[in-house]
Amino acid sequence: MMDRGRLEAFSDGVFAVAITLLALDLAVSGPGHGHRSLLQQLGAQWPVYAAYAVSFFTIGVLWVNHHSLFGQIAKVDRTLLFSNLALLLFVVAIPFVTSTLAAYLQEGGQDSHVAAGLYALVMEGMAVSFTLIFIHAVRRDLLIRTMTPAEARAAIVRFGVGTVVYLAVLGLAFVSAPAVLAVAALITAYYIFERVPSESEPDPVA
Amino acid sequence: MMDRGRLEAFSDGVFAVAITLLALDLAVSGPGHGHRSLLQQLGAQWPVYAAYAVSFFTIGVLWVNHHSLFGQIAKVDRTLLFSNLALLLFVVAIPFVTSTLAAYLQEGGQDSHVAAGLYALVMEGMAVSFTLIFIHAVRRDLLIRTMTPAEARAAIVRFGVGTVVYLAVLGLAFVSAPAVLAVAALITAYYIFERVPSESEPDPVA
Amino acid sequence: MMDRGRLEAFSDGVFAVAITLLALDLAVSGPGHGHRSLLQQLGAQWPVYAAYAVSFFTIGVLWVNHHSLFGQIAKVDRTLLFSNLALLLFVVAIPFVTSTLAAYLQEGGQDSHVAAGLYALVMEGMAVSFTLIFIHAVRRDLLIRTMTPAEARAAIVRFGVGTVVYLAVLGLAFVSAPAVLAVAALITAYYIFERVPSESEPDPVA
Amino acid sequence: MMDRGRLEAFSDGVFAVAITLLALDLAVSGPGHGHRSLLQQLGAQWPVYAAYAVSFFTIGVLWVNHHSLFGQIAKVDRTLLFSNLALLLFVVAIPFVTSTLAAYLQEGGQDSHVAAGLYALVMEGMAVSFTLIFIHAVRRDLLIRTMTPAEARAAIVRFGVGTVVYLAVLGLAFVSAPAVLAVAALITAYYIFERVPSESEPDPVA
Repeated sequence: MMDRGRLEAFSDGVFAVAITLLALDLAVSGPGHGHRSLLQQLGAQWPVYAAYAVSFFTIGVLWVNHHSLFGQIAKVDRTLLFSNLALLLFVVAIPFVTSTLAAYLQEGGQDSHVAAGLYALVMEGMAVSFTLIFIHAVRRDLLIRTMTPAEARAAIVRFGVGTVVYLAVLGLAFVSAPAVLAVAALITAYYIFERVPSESEPDPVA
Repeated sequence: MMDRGRLEAFSDGVFAVAITLLALDLAVSGPGHGHRSLLQQLGAQWPVYAAYAVSFFTIGVLWVNHHSLFGQIAKVDRTLLFSNLALLLFVVAIPFVTSTLAAYLQEGGQDSHVAAGLYALVMEGMAVSFTLIFIHAVRRDLLIRTMTPAEARAAIVRFGVGTVVYLAVLGLAFVSAPAVLAVAALITAYYIFERVPSESEPDPVA
Repeated sequence: MMDRGRLEAFSDGVFAVAITLLALDLAVSGPGHGHRSLLQQLGAQWPVYAAYAVSFFTIGVLWVNHHSLFGQIAKVDRTLLFSNLALLLFVVAIPFVTSTLAAYLQEGGQDSHVAAGLYALVMEGMAVSFTLIFIHAVRRDLLIRTMTPAEARAAIVRFGVGTVVYLAVLGLAFVSAPAVLAVAALITAYYIFERVPSESEPDPVA
Repeated sequence: MMDRGRLEAFSDGVFAVAITLLALDLAVSGPGHGHRSLLQQLGAQWPVYAAYAVSFFTIGVLWVNHHSLFGQIAKVDRTLLFSNLALLLFVVAIPFVTSTLAAYLQEGGQDSHVAAGLYALVMEGMAVSFTLIFIHAVRRDLLIRTMTPAEARAAIVRFGVGTVVYLAVLGLAFVSAPAVLAVAALITAYYIFERVPSESEPDPVA
C-alpha cells in the first residue's frame, strides 16, 4: 500500500535532484580554450545565472507548496499518484528548459521566442498538473478536512490562477524572452507569499 | 539489521535520481553551433522527447508497483536485498538505453534494431528481477498475509506476464525500433491500471 | 503543513546530490586523446583533487552543522523555509565554483583571482544564509529551548564569525588563489571541532 | 542533535546518487559520429559494462553492510560522523575510478596499471574508513549490545581482512588491470555472503 509519506519522499528526491542539476549549467570553459578571460566569460553568462536563480526558486517554492498541499491530503489514490508523476515530469524538464532559455535569451528573433515559449510551456504543464492534483483531491474527498462546496470553489479558483497566468506568459514569449524570465521571477515571488489554502495558521507552518 | 524502510528509502533515491537523469538527454546545442534554428533542432529531436516520456512513466510506474509489492512484505532477507539490487542495476541503466534508442530510432537498419533490442533487454531484466523478488517473497513466506497456493500461483502468473511480454518486445526489436517504443508505452499504460495484487482495496491506496 | 522533518529530508537530498556531483569534475580524458600518460594527467590535476577534498568536507561539515541547528528548532515558519532555500542555492553552486577554482588555480593573474573570489563569494553567501536562519530562529523564538538574551547574543556572535572570516577570504582572493583554498580547508577543519551551540553535550551527539 | 536516522538518510542519498551516476559512463557516440556501427561500439565497450557491474554491486554491497553496521550502533558521536564522511568521500569517487579503469583496461602498460592502482586505492580507502568506523564504535562502546573483548577482537580481525585484501589488490594493479577488476568482483561476491557480525540471525534480516 502506498502511503502519503512515500509519495512525498520520492517527490522530495526528484525535487532535490532536479534543483541540483540546474547548477550543471553553470560552467566556464577553463583556461586555454579560446582567449576570453574568466571575468569576460562570467559577465557574458549573466542569462545563465539569472535563469538559474529563477528556476531554483521556482522549484523551491513548488516544493514548499507541494508539501503544503499534501499536508492536507489524507488518502492517496492511483489517480493522485499518476497526477503527481505528471507534475514531476515537468519538474524534471526544468533544468533543460532553463538551460535552453539561458542559451537563447539574448539571441533575439524566433529562436529566443521559441526558447521562452518552451520555458512557459513547462511552467504551464507544472501549474496544470498541480491544479489537477488539488481538484481531484477535493472532488474525491481525499482531504483531511472536508471543504464546503463554497470553500472548494474558492480554493480551485485561487489555484487555477497559476494556470491562467502561465498561459499569458506563453503569449508573452512571442514578444520578449527576457520579459518571460522577469515575469517568471515575479510569479515565483508571488507564490513565496501566497500559498495553498490551509487551516488558517498565520505564520508558523508546523 | 536491515528493515524494509531503508530498502525502500534507498530504492526511492535510486528511482528519483534515475528518473531525473533521463532529462540530461534533453539538450539543444545552443546558438552559433551550426546553423539550425532552435525550432528545427527541437523538431528533429522528437524521438528524444518520446523516449523521455515513455521511460519516465516506465520508471514511475515501476516505482508505484515497487511500493505496492514491498507494502505487502513483512520480512526482508539477504536474497531479497540482492534481488532488489539487481532490479536497480537495470533501473539505473534506463537513461542509457533510452538515450541510445532515441539517438538511433530513425536510423533504420541494424543500428536501430540493436538500440531497440538493448532497450527491450533492460526492460526484460527489470521485469525478471521484479518477478524474482515476488516469487522469492511468496516461497519464503515473507509476506504480511500468507497466500494460499492457488493465490500464489495466480499472482505469479500475472507477474510473469511482464517477463513474457518484454521477450516479445525483444523479438519486435528486430523488426522496428519505433514499434518497440510504441509497445513499451502501451505496456506502461497497462501497468498504470493493472497492479500488484493487494488486499482488494478498490481505489484509495492508503 | 510543513514540519521540520521534511525540510531536513529535502535539504539532505540536496546536500547528498551536491556532494556527489563534486566528483563529476574528477575526470581524465582517456587514452588516445593527446599523448599524455594517465600518470601525467593525474599529476597535473592535483588542484582538482585538492579542491574536491576541500569542498567535499565543506559540504559535509555544513550538513553536520545544519542538522545540529535544526535539531534545536521546534517550529518552521515560511521565512525559515525560504532562508533555507537561499542556503541551498549556494550549496548547489559549490560544485561549479569548485570546478572553476580548480581549473584556474595555477593560472595566476586576474583569472585565478576571479576564480578564487567566486569561490569565496559562494562560501560567504552560505555563511550569511546560515547565520540568518539562526538569527531568525532566535528572534522569533522558534527554538526548542528559549535562549536568554545573553546566550542569544553570544551564540549569534559565534555564528557571525563565519561570515566575517569568509569576507576576509574574499579579500585574500585578490592576493592568491591557492591561499584561498588552503584557508577554506582550515575553516572547514575548524568547523569540524567548533559547532552550533547545543545543550552542552560533551561528545556523543545522539 | 544528530541521530542515527539522519546519518543513514544522508548516506543513503549519497549511495543512491553515486550508484546512479555510474551509469553516466554508459554512453555511445550516436549515429554520424564516425563510421562504427552501434554493435561495434557496444562490443568495444565491454570493459565499461564489466566495470559498471562490478562497481554497482560494490556500492550496493557496501550499502547493505553500512546498514548492518549502523543497525548495531546506538550512539553517534562526532568522530563517527566524520569517519562516515571519509567513507563517503571514497564512495563518491567510485564513478570516477570506475570510468578511468574502464577507459584504460585494455591499454596495457603503465597507464592500465595506474588506472587499476587508482581503483584499488579508492577501494582500500573505503575499506579502511569502514573498519575505522567499526573500531571506533567498539572502543567507545557506541554499540547497542556491548561486545566482550574477545568478540570485539574477532570482529575487528574479520573487518580488517578487507583492508588487507585491497592492499593485495593494489599490488596486483602493477601486474594486470583486468585481474584487478576480476578480483574486485570476487571480493564483492564474498561480501554478499559474509557480513557484519550481528546478533546471529540466520537469514531474515528484519
